[in-house]
Amino acid sequence: MIHERHLFGPGPANPYPEATAALGRPLLGHLDPAFLDVMDATCDQLRQAWGTTSARTLPISATGSAGMEAAFVNTVHPGDVVVVAVNGLFGQRMCDVAARCGAEVVAVEHEWGHPVDVERVLAAHPAPAIIAAVHAETSTGVRSDIAALGAGKGDALLLVDAVTSIGGIELRADDWGVDVGYAGTQKCLGVAPGLAPFTINDRAFERRVERPQSWYLDLGLLGGYVGEAGAAGGSGGRTYHHTAPVAMVASLHAGLTRILAEGLPAVWDRHEAAGRQLQDGLEEMGLELFAQKGHRLPELTTVRVPDGVDGAAVRRTLLERHGIEIGAGAGPYAASVWRIGLMGHNARPDAALLVLSALREALASA
Amino acid sequence: MIHERHLFGPGPANPYPEATAALGRPLLGHLDPAFLDVMDATCDQLRQAWGTTSARTLPISATGSAGMEAAFVNTVHPGDVVVVAVNGLFGQRMCDVAARCGAEVVAVEHEWGHPVDVERVLAAHPAPAIIAAVHAETSTGVRSDIAALGAGKGDALLLVDAVTSIGGIELRADDWGVDVGYAGTQKCLGVAPGLAPFTINDRAFERRVERPQSWYLDLGLLGGYVGEAGAAGGSGGRTYHHTAPVAMVASLHAGLTRILAEGLPAVWDRHEAAGRQLQDGLEEMGLELFAQKGHRLPELTTVRVPDGVDGAAVRRTLLERHGIEIGAGAGPYAASVWRIGLMGHNARPDAALLVLSALREALASA
Repeated sequence: MIHERHLFGPGPANPYPEATAALGRPLLGHLDPAFLDVMDATCDQLRQAWGTTSARTLPISATGSAGMEAAFVNTVHPGDVVVVAVNGLFGQRMCDVAARCGAEVVAVEHEWGHPVDVERVLAAHPAPAIIAAVHAETSTGVRSDIAALGAGKGDALLLVDAVTSIGGIELRADDWGVDVGYAGTQKCLGVAPGLAPFTINDRAFERRVERPQSWYLDLGLLGGYVGEAGAAGGSGGRTYHHTAPVAMVASLHAGLTRILAEGLPAVWDRHEAAGRQLQDGLEEMGLELFAQKGHRLPELTTVRVPDGVDGAAVRRTLLERHGIEIGAGAGPYAASVWRIGLMGHNARPDAALLVLSALREALASA
Repeated sequence: MIHERHLFGPGPANPYPEATAALGRPLLGHLDPAFLDVMDATCDQLRQAWGTTSARTLPISATGSAGMEAAFVNTVHPGDVVVVAVNGLFGQRMCDVAARCGAEVVAVEHEWGHPVDVERVLAAHPAPAIIAAVHAETSTGVRSDIAALGAGKGDALLLVDAVTSIGGIELRADDWGVDVGYAGTQKCLGVAPGLAPFTINDRAFERRVERPQSWYLDLGLLGGYVGEAGAAGGSGGRTYHHTAPVAMVASLHAGLTRILAEGLPAVWDRHEAAGRQLQDGLEEMGLELFAQKGHRLPELTTVRVPDGVDGAAVRRTLLERHGIEIGAGAGPYAASVWRIGLMGHNARPDAALLVLSALREALASA
């Protein structure tokens, strides 16, 4: 049975049609010259999406959470102090992952729904090896100021989660001083989940762990896999590391081609407009937004479930009546918050209108 | 530009058409009830493919090599003795991965092209924590006797690489005493690369590492992700761990549905027949097979490049003239061996005929 869904939750979003079409094309071998061209082109496109010139920019062959693990496992030496800005679920996860790499974690806790307090994070330790933060917290719908962290990081490496920001809001890794970044494909990039766009600059790569505890995510080995020499202008020789998920890479390439044809600033504007329309509409309905004003993500809106309303029942109604998925809240806000995403292909006025209308209808009968 | 290929190398193979079609279907959210049904059904199907009743059987969200890492990272306690049967590239890789988990690795080296010497492996250490071996060595085209290892393992756990055997030749994890196994989707299962079918039984799970160095591959957390309680007949509650690669899981489900409709014994017979046809044909052409007689995999044939022939040039000719991919040899045999796979949807007489005819033609003009 085929189910058609409007994926208006925190991800995955409905992919761009071009990304879906690419999944159905004839499969190529992972060492086929035609596939290596696709991989090279995808890495080039990812550099644009990240706002970086770093040669070591690639799609890691697993989902976004593996990107987080790749970031820490390659940069944390045992005993390193890692300051983590925790303002939601993914900051918490960073602490867990970093600790498993042997880090001495200094967690800087924030109230959920608030952005990272840059001053407090920078003052948390006199000489951290790494400062880590989430650009767009998927659990709360909050944007934090990565550029300010980069400006104040000193000798530390800045490690950033861009899972829900890449392809949706402004992201300038090089300008902002991001040394290591990871993302996902299933949010604003508008591609199915399964890859983790990743970037690491020379500064971080030079300080890397020579033989990380993960073989699969060892960036020293992955350089040959994506033909890093080629990316840097060299001969592009490849080393077999693992079999690339060729269909997913082809799909990411197609999604990025669509995004870059539209132009990143236009894509960001489109997300901004759809998010504003949604958030204004929710407030007009008398609903209360959860994320702090001035720091709300346009691509992912958090809204409080009205008193006396069964949030899960409303979500079920939307799914069953209209095939619309919206998300529950995360962690302690699972029952009291909804998360509504208008990401990638869904960042459109008609999608905003549809989810507003459907929610109004469902609340009227709740 | 669309390239159509006959993928007759060591993998990926051309997927079953049903598996490709599933990739293009509307995407579901990873917590959608309809997707959870797909995930449950896929885990059930994987139990059949593995020949196990273990509740902890699931598709890990990364390629086969991450399956290897998941196997070791969850079972190796620091200082554990791990005996690894090394008769090719993937045995070597096991040593690297196990060592990064803190194992004391006892590598039992074999000549490439030969099967695992069970006596020697069992005698390598008096009390290993783990004995690890590759069922079907993708680098050499050799099958080893896993049941004999299982019969003699004693108190050790038996950890098996089934990347190139699952869905192609007989595999009976429970009957053979396999405690931990990992595989890939892009060989005989006839699905694009991107997932690692994985199984671990109670015996191994009870001895697992409580907080493995990998968060992404932590089986203690992944149990909730696939609704392990449901698999065991319980309520099937889900815990959010990471976003499942929903399109790939749907594709695996479709591929397995096709395989199980045909029936595993029939699928094994089909691989056996295609492989025999290919190997007989190669010998009739005067070529010399590389893998030791009596231990050759039907799904992956290794053959020596004839003296005076440029193996890479022949592969290039096949690719350019007919869109046929065959593989180079692995490791020290990169230039002197070809690897020809007839796996999954390609395990057919017409595919065997085509690759034989094309190779004969290419050699005549080489």
